[in-house]
Amino acid sequence: MSTHQASDSGTVAGMGEFGLIRAVTENRRQPAATLLGPGDDAAVVAAPDGRVVATTDVLVQGVHFRLDWSTPDQVGRKAVAENFADVAAMGAVPTAVLVGLACPPDTPAKVVRELSDGLWAEAQRAGAGVVGGDMVRADQLVVSITALGDLQGREPVTRSGARPGDIVAVSGRLGWAAAGLATLGRGFRSPVAVVNAQRAPEPDYAAGPAAAIAGATSMIDVSDGLLADLGHIAEASGVGIDVRTEHLEVDRKLVDIGTALGADPMTWVLTGGEDHALVATFPSFADLPEGWRRIGAVTMADSGVTVDGEEYHGESGWEHWR
Amino acid sequence: MSTHQASDSGTVAGMGEFGLIRAVTENRRQPAATLLGPGDDAAVVAAPDGRVVATTDVLVQGVHFRLDWSTPDQVGRKAVAENFADVAAMGAVPTAVLVGLACPPDTPAKVVRELSDGLWAEAQRAGAGVVGGDMVRADQLVVSITALGDLQGREPVTRSGARPGDIVAVSGRLGWAAAGLATLGRGFRSPVAVVNAQRAPEPDYAAGPAAAIAGATSMIDVSDGLLADLGHIAEASGVGIDVRTEHLEVDRKLVDIGTALGADPMTWVLTGGEDHALVATFPSFADLPEGWRRIGAVTMADSGVTVDGEEYHGESGWEHWR
Repeated sequence: MSTHQASDSGTVAGMGEFGLIRAVTENRRQPAATLLGPGDDAAVVAAPDGRVVATTDVLVQGVHFRLDWSTPDQVGRKAVAENFADVAAMGAVPTAVLVGLACPPDTPAKVVRELSDGLWAEAQRAGAGVVGGDMVRADQLVVSITALGDLQGREPVTRSGARPGDIVAVSGRLGWAAAGLATLGRGFRSPVAVVNAQRAPEPDYAAGPAAAIAGATSMIDVSDGLLADLGHIAEASGVGIDVRTEHLEVDRKLVDIGTALGADPMTWVLTGGEDHALVATFPSFADLPEGWRRIGAVTMADSGVTVDGEEYHGESGWEHWR
Repeated sequence: MSTHQASDSGTVAGMGEFGLIRAVTENRRQPAATLLGPGDDAAVVAAPDGRVVATTDVLVQGVHFRLDWSTPDQVGRKAVAENFADVAAMGAVPTAVLVGLACPPDTPAKVVRELSDGLWAEAQRAGAGVVGGDMVRADQLVVSITALGDLQGREPVTRSGARPGDIVAVSGRLGWAAAGLATLGRGFRSPVAVVNAQRAPEPDYAAGPAAAIAGATSMIDVSDGLLADLGHIAEASGVGIDVRTEHLEVDRKLVDIGTALGADPMTWVLTGGEDHALVATFPSFADLPEGWRRIGAVTMADSGVTVDGEEYHGESGWEHWR
């Protein structure tokens, strides 16, 4: 067995499964919610609410990320971020992630170590721990994340509670990741702030619980694009939603990139995914929490999502199979 | 978008992500522990103990399963079984699984549907639900499972609690999956009972909580092989473990296959993984629960695992990277 052979540690095959697990779990600081961390058949995580919020996402090299565009650290951070954004969108607080990693045997051990560093960095930013995982051989690098969260006694905020008359509001940036993707796609690496928004978004997880406390009637994280994700709320709630472009700020950086690339930055804002902003509906009398801004209203119409009162005819998001 | 086009439903690409998710989630019966099932940003699962047990495993086509050896249904059942065996090995009761599925766009939708049926069948056998998932495109079929469980007020049974003088006992079959794998490897498809033990083991999940109630001091599921997994207990507990072959029953079927293939069936029993039996240590005065049988003892020696008092010189398990 190659477990203890440090001399051949250049690739994951050289380190062996157990050696690699040791390398990525040693000297990590678990938060209080991690009652039993990696190293046993399963982890044990505090679930003080008596209910646990759970979600899973799979990221595939060449489909969801490219290692010539992002560092392994950024891939790890993004993998955790998109899952904890889902936890936050339920109004819950992140507690733990589990990681399934499949990769070719000749993958440099350095890639796995850096990816693990990224997973840990984002988990710690969220106040959570990486509590367990699995590492296996495959032809392609695949990162599978499961995130857990705690509701702290609140009811989960689902997609189905929006009511006509509610305010639609957003917390976080829109269109930045899409602008970053367009920039990378043209072979540019700057502006860094925009490119990094695509490589490793940094969702404000606290905005989810804050919205729940403020009485949000429905919530979702913007992973497929604002209109597509509002479409999920409209469908689940049986309502219409009208977005007002006058309320959608388009940052100067996005305008500049749009001009440079010959693209309409408002399209990024309306249809770009991967920023993992949170969008929610609130009763009209609600005080929006800090960082939340009104962008539209819930209507009676059972007709999906409109922009400035009219049907939108651009791309409305993406499906993984297309 | 292709979501609603039933005409092109032969492949996963034809059905689209949302169409496929609908196809595999429709008409499923969730258990009471599923407070919010698939369809939102995250699921909500009951965790009455106030702690949640969580574990994840990744299965890769060509590495962990072959679709010419197993049906998609069997792959699905095995994927859930090996995860819930880990939950049971903590002394916990299975409550939920989440599924990450990566597959090529030309994968027949039928494969995904049958795999999903297998996931559901095993989850229901365990009393649990499939509460969430993600489906993405990849070059290779990868199934990532995260399983959750509830400790029902008991302390988790870890790998580190074995003490000299303890009894070592096992619940479930040993060597069957390895004999099945050897049989399949030689191109045979029978005896079916042995081959199916490899294709879709059926762990007795209740044996885990029963062992915990009976006072088990350590426990693990046999996924890498009896000696390898006892080695994990010995290492974590800082003890030695001696296995007595006189207590290891070798079923007549395994003897027959061994004779036919020119292999020693005791090697399968000692080193074969994937049966997902449970092995545990108990105080010498403990009454072993039904289905548990004594196979050895915990010793003072800090020397790993011995067989009949002597070092074992065969294969002791496997690592994924070799």
